[in-house]
Amino acid sequence: MINVHFAAPSERWETYATPLRAAFDKAGLDVELRTDHTPDTVDYIIYAPNGPLSDFTSYTRCKAVLSLWAGVEKIVGNASLTMPLCRMVDPGLTMGMVEWVTGHVLRYHLDIDRSLSMQDQWKPQIPPLALERPVTILGLGALGQACAQTLSQLGFPVTGWSRSPKVIDGITCQHGAEGLAQALESAEIVVLLLPDTAATENTLNAQTLALLPKGARVINPGRGPLIDDDALLAALDSGHIAHATLDVFRIEPLPADHPYWAHPNVTVTPHIAADTRAITSAQVIAENIRRGECAEPYLHLVDRDLGY
Amino acid sequence: MINVHFAAPSERWETYATPLRAAFDKAGLDVELRTDHTPDTVDYIIYAPNGPLSDFTSYTRCKAVLSLWAGVEKIVGNASLTMPLCRMVDPGLTMGMVEWVTGHVLRYHLDIDRSLSMQDQWKPQIPPLALERPVTILGLGALGQACAQTLSQLGFPVTGWSRSPKVIDGITCQHGAEGLAQALESAEIVVLLLPDTAATENTLNAQTLALLPKGARVINPGRGPLIDDDALLAALDSGHIAHATLDVFRIEPLPADHPYWAHPNVTVTPHIAADTRAITSAQVIAENIRRGECAEPYLHLVDRDLGY
Repeated sequence: MINVHFAAPSERWETYATPLRAAFDKAGLDVELRTDHTPDTVDYIIYAPNGPLSDFTSYTRCKAVLSLWAGVEKIVGNASLTMPLCRMVDPGLTMGMVEWVTGHVLRYHLDIDRSLSMQDQWKPQIPPLALERPVTILGLGALGQACAQTLSQLGFPVTGWSRSPKVIDGITCQHGAEGLAQALESAEIVVLLLPDTAATENTLNAQTLALLPKGARVINPGRGPLIDDDALLAALDSGHIAHATLDVFRIEPLPADHPYWAHPNVTVTPHIAADTRAITSAQVIAENIRRGECAEPYLHLVDRDLGY
Repeated sequence: MINVHFAAPSERWETYATPLRAAFDKAGLDVELRTDHTPDTVDYIIYAPNGPLSDFTSYTRCKAVLSLWAGVEKIVGNASLTMPLCRMVDPGLTMGMVEWVTGHVLRYHLDIDRSLSMQDQWKPQIPPLALERPVTILGLGALGQACAQTLSQLGFPVTGWSRSPKVIDGITCQHGAEGLAQALESAEIVVLLLPDTAATENTLNAQTLALLPKGARVINPGRGPLIDDDALLAALDSGHIAHATLDVFRIEPLPADHPYWAHPNVTVTPHIAADTRAITSAQVIAENIRRGECAEPYLHLVDRDLGY
């Protein structure tokens, strides 16, 4: 019997208890998962910040603390946490992003919004094939690469752009300032998946938006500051950009008076493109407990000096 | 120089001339494509019904007649057509179907309609992952299999049902009456891609709709008669079926007074899910001319006795 203590804000228990128990069963682990284990009987702690636990001193038998979230900044410096600490790297986050991006690319490609608005007339308009619809992805990190490969498998000609050169099978890879111009010039749909850094701020601005062909569509599931909002609104108003679907913003929730809400050619989604998922994170937790029991190295072990 | 005569209704010329020329170039064929070749100089005829050509007698040098469409019933019995006749099997038709089905499955999966209707409030609702969303495809012909495989690659658990047993990698295959019940019981989204036969009529009826879990969604890009329309409307009205997206109907165009048009939980699309595409059919035509020039066997040669 392995005693696993769930130390997270109480609303997480509802979401995680069932997937965790399923993952333990699947991994063949005989686990007693509870929120009220006696500290000195606990073998592993599942941890999220803002919950009941801040002093780990009495968990004398605990082999590892397994964070539910990727960010561990709230406990990495906790002096009472002397056991190994693992952060979460959830494959479900990438899966969810790929599904969201693919869904909205296909929504634009098939002009599903037109179909939804044409519920009183039979006016067939056959869309082109994916192979005739160039898509560009700005950012070729883990998320950008996964989206690029899925869209490429669906038949879209995919161009990817990153700051440094990359080579990815089936993807036309561009880099640097000149490469950005080439990546944008042919893109009927552009997806932003760059990190939020000083160098990427306003990657889409008046000059770069002008490089896109007339009628291009913009999808931003990356970071709010990647877009110069005034420049995008001007490009939407002029019709140069046909439509934008935006999931992330400089201020979230997006303020009620922001012009994006009311714009007829903007779809706002409330930062839902990527999130940690209980079903897949539970499997990562179970795998780390299995490793702990077999004395194998933990996945995603935090380096206390680096802080992640 | 190969003389290719384009004999189709004039509106087709605009759609096909450019893709055909591109396909000939790509295949390295030196072709003179025209609509006004002198008959006894013609090497190949590209044919569609209802065009200028009904008597092939004077095309004495013609090596083959290449149909733009799959159906050749209008010329297969033409006594003046003594040269080989090839029908069209267009890979673009399958590609377009896969794109349309995948787009609407992802639309349902991500609840994109809700996103589009929530353009005044920030209320995040994270969808489940594809791996938590069972999809069932009724019909495992070329189109059903292609859709099943693409959805499976995107992570959906896919069940396929066909009348006779099939084995497809990664797909849970069911068959027969008992298999239909099993295929429907878990399906959160069901896609109809069965052929239109006496045996498949009303495959979705009051009894089979009741087997679907409450809140299931129906997508029909197959054939209109696969659904008992009154039974589907009743299931939509009761809320047992949450939504239906229908591309094909018993009568097309769908009559203006049909209840599907006005139903809030039905999306009507005007038979656009699958169509022959110029870009891919042009490549099939070019390949057949290349084969003719090399005396290789033609693709999709019509058997005059069978009629296809």
